[in-house]
Amino acid sequence: MKILESLKWRYATKKFDPTKKLTEDLISGILEVLNLTPTSYGLQPLKFLHVKNHEVRKKLVEHSWNQKQVQDASDLIIICIQDQITEKDVDSYIERIANIRNEDINAPRFESFKTMLMKIVSWSDSDYQEWARKQAYIALGNLMTSCAVERIDACPMEGFDPKKYDETLNLREKGLHSVLVCPVGYRSENDPNSELAKVRKKHDEIVIEIV
Amino acid sequence: MKILESLKWRYATKKFDPTKKLTEDLISGILEVLNLTPTSYGLQPLKFLHVKNHEVRKKLVEHSWNQKQVQDASDLIIICIQDQITEKDVDSYIERIANIRNEDINAPRFESFKTMLMKIVSWSDSDYQEWARKQAYIALGNLMTSCAVERIDACPMEGFDPKKYDETLNLREKGLHSVLVCPVGYRSENDPNSELAKVRKKHDEIVIEIV
Repeated sequence: MKILESLKWRYATKKFDPTKKLTEDLISGILEVLNLTPTSYGLQPLKFLHVKNHEVRKKLVEHSWNQKQVQDASDLIIICIQDQITEKDVDSYIERIANIRNEDINAPRFESFKTMLMKIVSWSDSDYQEWARKQAYIALGNLMTSCAVERIDACPMEGFDPKKYDETLNLREKGLHSVLVCPVGYRSENDPNSELAKVRKKHDEIVIEIV
Repeated sequence: MKILESLKWRYATKKFDPTKKLTEDLISGILEVLNLTPTSYGLQPLKFLHVKNHEVRKKLVEHSWNQKQVQDASDLIIICIQDQITEKDVDSYIERIANIRNEDINAPRFESFKTMLMKIVSWSDSDYQEWARKQAYIALGNLMTSCAVERIDACPMEGFDPKKYDETLNLREKGLHSVLVCPVGYRSENDPNSELAKVRKKHDEIVIEIV
């Protein structure tokens, strides 16, 4: 299976080559990959920040346990969730479906779909955010695998201070919370981690067959 | 970017062709894909159930809002989390790293690494499970993208009754909780969903550039 080569090639790149840049095509491809992430009910409660400003990236290093890859990688992606889902989001979503699929927005199936989606709107903040955060992790899984297929290096990061990120990037004003950080680019030739053997459980330790 | 074709090809397959089966090679490839999923600290708090028993799969349909793909797809994968992470898990992990990388298990770096990982062991059940569940979602993202690259159809499912699944599969005895379900196989030629245009937000609705 060809994908296995890609997954074995990738690793959490701790040292990027700051001189090697992704082309505009690759960056817009990565952002499209993220937008294509499947999400629960298709609701996409996510936003993807592409941080180009180097002063900002330098500042974010301080809020990332001083991990230099935030600054050195070609590009920096931050996966965020919306603070909340509103009825307006649900209506826009249904409008989007009807438009793209050329369907009648007054069809009864949209009414029952809306009723179902409105349950999410009625959830408590913490239930909603727990659900939305999980969708951010699907995006991360998709991003890492897609980058590996394209031989782009990435460093998935939970290790940062989300409050400081939110402050630095004015995310509260934008109605967002930062959830995951992922610098992308190309590994440095002298990243010692790139030579380390991958550590995973043995098949029998992680797979259970129900026969 | 080649990966985009794959991501556009995939969709949540609601109707599988029950006569089309994945080869043994593809199934073992899928299980290896799952094992290669990157996880926080590399701790892999996950187990992957491969349910082959058709009587069991039939029973699980009832606990999946009667979604027939659980029974009809070539194979059924259930992504589970361990109930807890113990000191024994941490020690096995460190042993695994030392073995695979041929390192001295008494090296000081392993001592500080263990101290760090023991923090997770000391978390409350709910904090631990929230963290572990997120790792399950990375596995799902990886699985969906990898399947798409290999032109294998998949149907990611949050819509099932985890308690009934845990009962049916005796997961509590195994120290596991079911988190996500994913039938994999090949789409039926008459799945109307396979023809539907993909619905996603516009680039500007989901990407924010920080310049």
